[in-house]
Amino acid sequence: MTGHLKINKKRLLADIEALSKIGGTADGGVHRPALSDADLEARRWFRTKAEAVKLTVTQDGIGNLSAIWPSATPGARTVMFGSHLDTVPHGGRFDGALGVVAALEVLRTIQEARLSLPCHLEAISFTDEEGTATGNGLVGSRGLAGLLDEEDLQHPRHEEQAGFEARLAATGITIPGALAARRKPQTLKAWIEVHVEQGPRLDDLGIPIGVVTGIAGIYTYWLTFRGRADHSGTIPLDQRRDALQGAALFVRRSRELVGNYFEGGVMNCGMIDVSPGAFNIVPEVAHLAIEVRHANSEKLGLMCEAILNLAQEVAREEGLELEVAPLDDHQPAQMHPEIIAAIEDACELLDLPYKRMSSYAGHDTQIVATITRAGMFFVPSVGGISHSPHELTHAEDCINAGNLLLHTVLKLTESG
Amino acid sequence: MTGHLKINKKRLLADIEALSKIGGTADGGVHRPALSDADLEARRWFRTKAEAVKLTVTQDGIGNLSAIWPSATPGARTVMFGSHLDTVPHGGRFDGALGVVAALEVLRTIQEARLSLPCHLEAISFTDEEGTATGNGLVGSRGLAGLLDEEDLQHPRHEEQAGFEARLAATGITIPGALAARRKPQTLKAWIEVHVEQGPRLDDLGIPIGVVTGIAGIYTYWLTFRGRADHSGTIPLDQRRDALQGAALFVRRSRELVGNYFEGGVMNCGMIDVSPGAFNIVPEVAHLAIEVRHANSEKLGLMCEAILNLAQEVAREEGLELEVAPLDDHQPAQMHPEIIAAIEDACELLDLPYKRMSSYAGHDTQIVATITRAGMFFVPSVGGISHSPHELTHAEDCINAGNLLLHTVLKLTESG
Repeated sequence: MTGHLKINKKRLLADIEALSKIGGTADGGVHRPALSDADLEARRWFRTKAEAVKLTVTQDGIGNLSAIWPSATPGARTVMFGSHLDTVPHGGRFDGALGVVAALEVLRTIQEARLSLPCHLEAISFTDEEGTATGNGLVGSRGLAGLLDEEDLQHPRHEEQAGFEARLAATGITIPGALAARRKPQTLKAWIEVHVEQGPRLDDLGIPIGVVTGIAGIYTYWLTFRGRADHSGTIPLDQRRDALQGAALFVRRSRELVGNYFEGGVMNCGMIDVSPGAFNIVPEVAHLAIEVRHANSEKLGLMCEAILNLAQEVAREEGLELEVAPLDDHQPAQMHPEIIAAIEDACELLDLPYKRMSSYAGHDTQIVATITRAGMFFVPSVGGISHSPHELTHAEDCINAGNLLLHTVLKLTESG
Repeated sequence: MTGHLKINKKRLLADIEALSKIGGTADGGVHRPALSDADLEARRWFRTKAEAVKLTVTQDGIGNLSAIWPSATPGARTVMFGSHLDTVPHGGRFDGALGVVAALEVLRTIQEARLSLPCHLEAISFTDEEGTATGNGLVGSRGLAGLLDEEDLQHPRHEEQAGFEARLAATGITIPGALAARRKPQTLKAWIEVHVEQGPRLDDLGIPIGVVTGIAGIYTYWLTFRGRADHSGTIPLDQRRDALQGAALFVRRSRELVGNYFEGGVMNCGMIDVSPGAFNIVPEVAHLAIEVRHANSEKLGLMCEAILNLAQEVAREEGLELEVAPLDDHQPAQMHPEIIAAIEDACELLDLPYKRMSSYAGHDTQIVATITRAGMFFVPSVGGISHSPHELTHAEDCINAGNLLLHTVLKLTESG
């Protein structure tokens, strides 16, 4: 009976356009870092839009901003959905924004249809997803999940703490409030986020919807290969213990290893330096930063093990010593099968082709998954371009995002 | 009739020991950078030792210090030999010093034998061979060869120029004097230098003498591989244009290329950095410093061509752009066949096994070769250790150095 319901696509597209002007840059991008003036203006825009249609707007202790369509059912739980209004510096107009605008549009559509539902609906924008304000992302969702501690609210540069707290205050956030923002899991029924893919897979395949099955965990390490500093002229090539040769061999072989044996895994060697560092000195030490991602916890562990074994093997072959310094380990998040099913049912209803996939980027969803059943879907990013003024998601895909979110939310409310 | 002549080995070893105390460090090394107080003291030591046996001591405009055993023959030319008294910071006691002490000992031996020779003999210590004072080595020999210009006598840090000129003055050097230090080539008959090998070849083979046939030329380049900065999670491995992958492939393949196809050539990749430089960004740009050495000019050219072609091939394979910025090109120096023959004849006379070899390190000899017939020989460095307090040349090899220099000098004086 609600299968025919559609969002107002003109309104959705107009909202995306209007929001893109807040912090908009000359090249068509958006510069709207968390807690900036532009971010505050975007928050006011959201509030105004929601209040204009008589939705209740609230803000929690960490500044997450919610528009609510309440249920009349006693003891109703909340189906929550949304994304984030902040952007990376000089980013694009779809990353985060699409998920918030779609969530708002879903509420307006349901409100206009006067649907009486057995769940509260809450469209939320999370604070500082990108981590530009705090140096570490997913801040609002971590607050909501009770995973923030005081350290997370210290500015990375001590001398800027006062200014940072002033920005927090201007946004309506206090540190005690932020630390007390945890939502009770039993009040939540489900979480759903729609986001642009930020990669090229859907665009390459011409498939409009990616149903996320898991969000990649990320392990990072510093590897140090240590050999001997030699005169680059007088020591024959075959007698050197050249740390850069070892690092280079590892860079090549590790990509092969992941490409050949770990489907669904990716890795990156994003930083390297060698010392002493001179034209005429054979490198003694090479430091290499590596990052490993996989959406499956067990496979991520196996992959890291294989990669570190490879590093050890390379060091042995090249006569080097190896030190491994693990840095961060963000665990993968599995999407809940019932939420995946709800998204896929909604796809069938709307006749939208879809493909299951992992998310290799981090999202608030991975945090919210720790306190409720969570799911996520992607719409295509043209050419996979992301965190750039040139990121683009076609209008039709934005409309699909809104309609699929709407019907996923409706499916999730069905059982009350 | 002079075939039986030998240097005074006790005196030679005592001199090496005494000189090692000037700038000597607790670990048995020597810290005697050019123009330092220790360098000035070493210069005084040399003058005192030479004057004690009635040798004439002179210093030219760039501070090269010479002890002279003059010939009575009218219009006699000079056979010159020596090395340098300065060391790298925290270096060893043999690099440079052995060649100067051996040269002084040769003069004393000839003077004691009252040999009347048809050539002047000159034992010389060149200024700032290591380049610690001026930032660019072989300074004294370049002055002697007329290859210095004013820029060479500017301190690398402008604000230290006044202090630098004060050190020059304390050493008896003025800039106009330095620029006028050129020796007339027609006054010179030959040049010969003995030096420690600074590499492991002689020590590995158990051969006491290396007859240098050429000194490697050195070409240096910065290579820039340029790809695309991508999100390390969302862009599949096979769609990346990762500059570090290209640089790593080049680092490996270029060593293979040189090892397999360019006997007598060496290369080094001594510095690397990538940007943007983050765990989660695929490297867009990789800068790589490369240095290529070969003692044969034509082969050096071919080798550089092959290496740069390889870089281009790697860039193409990896979907990268390549920029090549040539930096320095120091041409190789060929040793003169007559000087090589004189050294080898003297080896036969002294029953010293020898092996012809290239020098991959730079030496004053490569500069002196531009104005007279030049030759050079090596004695072993234990384990090839160089520019280190741990560099070691056994006493027997030091004595060989003195005796072989003596008889090479005598051979070179034969024809007047």
